[in-house]
Amino acid sequence: MQKPTIKYVAKEANVSIATVSRILNNGVGYSEKTKKLVLETIQQMGYSPNAIARGLINKQSNTIGVLMPEISGLVSADILQGIEKAAHSQGQSVIVCNTAPFGNQTMDYLKLLQEKQVDGLLFTSQFLTTEHSTYIKQMDVPAITISAYSNDKTIPAVRVDDEQAAYDAVQYLIKRGHRHIGMISGSPDDPLAGSPRINGYKKALYDHHIEYDDSKIAWRYGFYFEDGREACSTLLQKHPNLTAIFAASDELASGAIAACYESGLSIPKDLSLVGYDGTKLSKMTHPALTTVSQHFVEMGETAVNLLLKPIQDTKYRSGAIIQHQIIERASVRTIN
Amino acid sequence: MQKPTIKYVAKEANVSIATVSRILNNGVGYSEKTKKLVLETIQQMGYSPNAIARGLINKQSNTIGVLMPEISGLVSADILQGIEKAAHSQGQSVIVCNTAPFGNQTMDYLKLLQEKQVDGLLFTSQFLTTEHSTYIKQMDVPAITISAYSNDKTIPAVRVDDEQAAYDAVQYLIKRGHRHIGMISGSPDDPLAGSPRINGYKKALYDHHIEYDDSKIAWRYGFYFEDGREACSTLLQKHPNLTAIFAASDELASGAIAACYESGLSIPKDLSLVGYDGTKLSKMTHPALTTVSQHFVEMGETAVNLLLKPIQDTKYRSGAIIQHQIIERASVRTIN
Repeated sequence: MQKPTIKYVAKEANVSIATVSRILNNGVGYSEKTKKLVLETIQQMGYSPNAIARGLINKQSNTIGVLMPEISGLVSADILQGIEKAAHSQGQSVIVCNTAPFGNQTMDYLKLLQEKQVDGLLFTSQFLTTEHSTYIKQMDVPAITISAYSNDKTIPAVRVDDEQAAYDAVQYLIKRGHRHIGMISGSPDDPLAGSPRINGYKKALYDHHIEYDDSKIAWRYGFYFEDGREACSTLLQKHPNLTAIFAASDELASGAIAACYESGLSIPKDLSLVGYDGTKLSKMTHPALTTVSQHFVEMGETAVNLLLKPIQDTKYRSGAIIQHQIIERASVRTIN
Repeated sequence: MQKPTIKYVAKEANVSIATVSRILNNGVGYSEKTKKLVLETIQQMGYSPNAIARGLINKQSNTIGVLMPEISGLVSADILQGIEKAAHSQGQSVIVCNTAPFGNQTMDYLKLLQEKQVDGLLFTSQFLTTEHSTYIKQMDVPAITISAYSNDKTIPAVRVDDEQAAYDAVQYLIKRGHRHIGMISGSPDDPLAGSPRINGYKKALYDHHIEYDDSKIAWRYGFYFEDGREACSTLLQKHPNLTAIFAASDELASGAIAACYESGLSIPKDLSLVGYDGTKLSKMTHPALTTVSQHFVEMGETAVNLLLKPIQDTKYRSGAIIQHQIIERASVRTIN
């Protein structure tokens, strides 16, 4: 006999997994008719409602809470798409909380998600402080970070290897004959998306015997269009002989494209450009952007699957490194 | 004496409004020390905890639920930014649920938000069916739609006047000498963002004695870059004499720009283009896009303020029309 699970019951009764869960947990939001149907289905399948309900002991709300500092961006969009896809296929609902640009609302939202009794937490694209990780641990629900940075290494992480991905982007340019390569980065003080990418850039230059010059790295406040535009203008003024730029986000790269138009430079004829992230923006620029994809959709899916995986000891819940990939489009030319 | 409110207590005790609420509701997520501080503050201010708690009877969770079919887009981003800003300034938390592209998850998420006892619902950018509105009414919490379409006109709506906004965009082109104007639209069957904008286009042509030709309207599946690119190619093949195009979203317009590059057309020299939405994408295209701003941030703020406004009779909760605005940039030229 099949192991009695809520999934089979839902399928047999042709209702959602969430509805079966609600009925067995005496929740709200279903008709008496549906309740009758579900209970009869369980009986017909040869199970008892209690056997089904037992499977739910650790799955009381069938809800995953997602905390992210900016719901807006194209990066969050892709990560969320992956989260929702994997969560819904396992009968889980997802509630998303916007922790504000600097994560200022994080503690408030952790408390809220605790009240709402989520079954798991995904902590996306932000810096996880010790205060946050301490609170998460006392909540006693599984948590995974996605493309985030935490001082507490016991919380499993799903992310790309940023240093290696930046290294590969810069090496891609070097292999196409470029030796005067600038970088538009995030702040070097940003341990999440700033310093690792800068380190990758430096390391690629070093390994290919190209002298490093820190005035060839420019950054502004963040990873946005205006930041990219201003940083690119600065770089081009200081170093008119650059033949290529590596930008640490697609949006920074799109700002660099605007700066090139303003300077009368043509991409890739006068300047080659590699972006980072692989969001849909990289397809929408002109020229379309060669970029390092972080495979954010896969990242979101992987995180959910790891979060929901039944394990013996939460100490050993594992994270994952997502393989990055260079997507070649029209913004880089080979020079000899 | 000041009316005892949770807001003043929070300010005086230097804790968040949500924390005061949790303490008075015997919630979780605060220390004994904080609880003591808050209760003492209430006493010092000359109130009783019960008086404060009474003000919370209809505000049990201090949480607003937002349902949107796509968290990803730049439109949702701006609306959410406005929602969060207004909600946080009133001590409310926001949880966001992604109802999937066709709103397939809407009923499941309405049930979830009911279980989570939200104080109000914002229903964004999607079609509200009778099933949805019936369920919302039995939930007995206030609800407002934002840039959405509902058959049930008793649910207050916050939106722009789409027909008028499209009319103004097309009239803007006509006043700059254009008479051969195409449109890239959403599906005419889409009552939310399709037909009203098409009607505005038609009406502007009619009022300025320009013959309407339905083969000058092109659309594909949705409002995305690829839709805009394909629809623009089709339009330019059928009507090489067009001097201007009105695109019903900024992303459609960015696709049209790509199609023009592919056809060797220069914007605005060979073709003028007006977008719609006023998202940040409109600043990032080359040339920067003249567009109709829907003021989405203001839309989100307005909806929250109307939702939280104390009223005598929920039957008379009101909606609002947000004033649209043409933002002039570099994609339109005047012809004589």
